[in-house]
Amino acid sequence: MFEKLAVIGCGLMGGSFAMALRAAGRVQRVSGYSRSPASAQRAVELGIVDEAFDEPIDAVRGADLVLIAVPVGATQAALSALLPALSPQALVMDVGSTKRDVVAAALAAMGDRVAQFVPAHPIAGKATGGIEQAEATLYQGCTTILTPLAANPTEQVARAQAAWEAVGSRVVPMSAQAHDQTFAAVSHLPHLLAFAYMQGLMGQGPEALRQHLSVAGPGFRDFSRIAGSTSAIWRDIFSANRDEVLMQLTRFEASLAQFRQALTDGRDEDLARWVDEASAVRSRWPSLPD
Amino acid sequence: MFEKLAVIGCGLMGGSFAMALRAAGRVQRVSGYSRSPASAQRAVELGIVDEAFDEPIDAVRGADLVLIAVPVGATQAALSALLPALSPQALVMDVGSTKRDVVAAALAAMGDRVAQFVPAHPIAGKATGGIEQAEATLYQGCTTILTPLAANPTEQVARAQAAWEAVGSRVVPMSAQAHDQTFAAVSHLPHLLAFAYMQGLMGQGPEALRQHLSVAGPGFRDFSRIAGSTSAIWRDIFSANRDEVLMQLTRFEASLAQFRQALTDGRDEDLARWVDEASAVRSRWPSLPD
Repeated sequence: MFEKLAVIGCGLMGGSFAMALRAAGRVQRVSGYSRSPASAQRAVELGIVDEAFDEPIDAVRGADLVLIAVPVGATQAALSALLPALSPQALVMDVGSTKRDVVAAALAAMGDRVAQFVPAHPIAGKATGGIEQAEATLYQGCTTILTPLAANPTEQVARAQAAWEAVGSRVVPMSAQAHDQTFAAVSHLPHLLAFAYMQGLMGQGPEALRQHLSVAGPGFRDFSRIAGSTSAIWRDIFSANRDEVLMQLTRFEASLAQFRQALTDGRDEDLARWVDEASAVRSRWPSLPD
Repeated sequence: MFEKLAVIGCGLMGGSFAMALRAAGRVQRVSGYSRSPASAQRAVELGIVDEAFDEPIDAVRGADLVLIAVPVGATQAALSALLPALSPQALVMDVGSTKRDVVAAALAAMGDRVAQFVPAHPIAGKATGGIEQAEATLYQGCTTILTPLAANPTEQVARAQAAWEAVGSRVVPMSAQAHDQTFAAVSHLPHLLAFAYMQGLMGQGPEALRQHLSVAGPGFRDFSRIAGSTSAIWRDIFSANRDEVLMQLTRFEASLAQFRQALTDGRDEDLARWVDEASAVRSRWPSLPD
């Protein structure tokens, strides 16, 4: 299907995509660039990438598929750097967790050639990133959101969809705005809450923190798992999707204020009803409410 | 080690304890009582309980070990009901997620005989409860907190510890107060936040909710998992540990307010630093900070 994939950003997401596409027999060769040369070199050692380059422009020469897998704030610089060597037939995609800013960055960097760029967001990840964590199965069974541009030719969108399906993903189209609203709700806000929760524990001092963490169980483990992510990803996401995250935060605060008031007032019946309503929706998921 | 275990409350926790103690060869017979006769009967069908009874008092006759595995708010009634038939040599334990209220309930129900009661809280669970979910491995590798009373003879505490170790658990002693403070921080607050988060999503209307849930990924899955619990457990816990939960909530709100302000002000450096501090602590867990 593809001759040569260029992975710009040799981390968990880019490395896993290369492994999966190769495992599916859909790509012949893979070139790689990473801001950290050690990551690109490691990708070669692991057999994920055939050849590593020091500059994006060299990695994309001859590529008919380019995957931008860098923090969203670095998208524009990456696209600008590779554009002079980009084949006019190549399909370019990203993996960013925000989409309106990525679309704006692509337009700024590529101008008319933005028609080659199909924004993508695979909903997959791990607690820790990096090329060492990459695996061919990362995208199997996951959902990938595509937010195609009006400028994208139909066949480019179809190629993008086929590539994500080849790595095992279900593809869902969405507008960039709907994407950013929805992911503020189901990903960005939960991350913000998990980080704030950990900071709330840490603010109780080292002795209390150690006591708390020493007996924390599976509830803590799952609830706070996403607080293990780092600013390498989250700084850009919070910055890019600030308004939607703040809007979701406002809704959460209003809901939490109701819980606080009922707790303070001893209105156990109200609390119980809200708990059971929430539980009914959550325990059915991934089935959707009627 | 034990002749006869009486399980008062045939659900996930009680059923799993019976299975595990039997699998370890530490108990000969198991009797069971459940508020829902169907659960006790099902426990018999599953071979978890040898004989089911309609009243706690009948279940505990001849038992040298009694496990109270009911919602914490039902502890006092259960202990009062079984006391007349309780052998003076029997060890009584519970599995409740709060401890100060359970100790008060035990004292109210048992008077002097509270010396037989060693409060226990095994840190284990599943997304869904019920006898059908019970398994002999539930407590393997988990931590069980004991909050012994001044009245407990040393040998009763040692028997309690041995029983929990027999089912595969690590035993940690703690005061009831320290327990309730710590679990407000690492369990009760996260549950409250997860319930409030789900209600915040639900408040956006059925269409937005369906859109959000249809593309939610592994971050949502883990963060909100505990919101699948129900009021059968959580109503009593929030009620029993109200003050500590409110105190932890206040700390969380202060932390979240800082995140909100930095987000509003565009202070991305501060956000990034807090994210990385939180991430450093969380990603080391279960190792503890220095």
